Amino acid sequence: MPPAMFVHCEEFDVPLRAGPDLADVTPQIARIITASGVRLGSAQLTAVGSTASLTTIEYEPGAVEDLKQAIQRLAPPDQPYHHEMTWHDGNGHSHVQAALLGPSLVVPIREGRPKLGTWQQVVLINHDIHARRRGVEVTIIGEV
Amino acid sequence: MPPAMFVHCEEFDVPLRAGPDLADVTPQIARIITASGVRLGSAQLTAVGSTASLTTIEYEPGAVEDLKQAIQRLAPPDQPYHHEMTWHDGNGHSHVQAALLGPSLVVPIREGRPKLGTWQQVVLINHDIHARRRGVEVTIIGEV
Amino acid sequence: MPPAMFVHCEEFDVPLRAGPDLADVTPQIARIITASGVRLGSAQLTAVGSTASLTTIEYEPGAVEDLKQAIQRLAPPDQPYHHEMTWHDGNGHSHVQAALLGPSLVVPIREGRPKLGTWQQVVLINHDIHARRRGVEVTIIGEV
Repeated sequence: MPPAMFVHCEEFDVPLRAGPDLADVTPQIARIITASGVRLGSAQLTAVGSTASLTTIEYEPGAVEDLKQAIQRLAPPDQPYHHEMTWHDGNGHSHVQAALLGPSLVVPIREGRPKLGTWQQVVLINHDIHARRRGVEVTIIGEV
Repeated sequence: MPPAMFVHCEEFDVPLRAGPDLADVTPQIARIITASGVRLGSAQLTAVGSTASLTTIEYEPGAVEDLKQAIQRLAPPDQPYHHEMTWHDGNGHSHVQAALLGPSLVVPIREGRPKLGTWQQVVLINHDIHARRRGVEVTIIGEV
Repeated sequence: MPPAMFVHCEEFDVPLRAGPDLADVTPQIARIITASGVRLGSAQLTAVGSTASLTTIEYEPGAVEDLKQAIQRLAPPDQPYHHEMTWHDGNGHSHVQAALLGPSLVVPIREGRPKLGTWQQVVLINHDIHARRRGVEVTIIGEV
């Protein structure tokens, strides 16, 4: 009989500055994996909201700044956006940036820990034009 | 003893116009989650085909138009593509766009419903140059 | 009583040339799915390391070359990068490219095989400036 599988879900949020701003959320993921008791499986992450995204990068100030600049090139804040014509909330570029980056990510769990590269951190990105707390739903599925 | 986990799989497709064209498929995802009976877990989505992709955005006409334009900038249809030299099917840019956006997405399930932001919808994108029905494979894993 | 679910995890790596370079890893995914015995579920893939990524594309030489060129446009190697000022390892663009493409992917498993389009292959991308073996963690969850 195989070991019993189960699901463990948690949400967390982190304060971020006006976008594009990034936070390393690997410690939160590691903590939730430990709390779940899952030793083998995956942590499935989804950023909640249409102006946030998730990816991985080497979390050091230079690479973070480079990524911010590349994100701004994908959808520059100073261009006209159709979203603005209706909503006038100034974040047309934020929606486009977040959609291109994508809201979800899968992190493998091995021996009860996230299995990533040594210099590969999970980052949560706020693309909105205001400082905001941004939330992540974590779905952990696996076995003890 | 933990509640029993199970997997529920379904496919659906939707008609889309020539790309880039988007449809809000959140209702289909919600319906399949309900049909599965899963209350806690995740819906894992994969667009079938190499000229389709999935992401989330606020599904209102302005943001949708902005995303279409950003997608066209990533791989403009009016540039030369190596794919054309062999296949002459006019969709070299479609393949590049779909590969950059990515075919898969994870939607958390909480209390039997997709847990996303209020203005965050799941969108299926056709990048091909013809109108096509585009399919999505949905793998739901979780517990009652 | 539903069929028992289980998790099966494997890692594989493939040699890649200096980036951007791509390999079709669909055969490896199919082999690991077969080895797992899972007939219905999903294969969750994560590229290990901050200068690698995963997506799908029609794996033919033209589309592969087109994707490489689009990736180089997203973060051109010949621009200045803040990452360089600290690390001087010449791969600032590699980190940005990999973060924009994203490290993870979900492949549905149906009847014991990956369910993708006929011309849709899973590709692993090395963005680093040196030839490297790049690894992928595969988490398969499903039922027999």
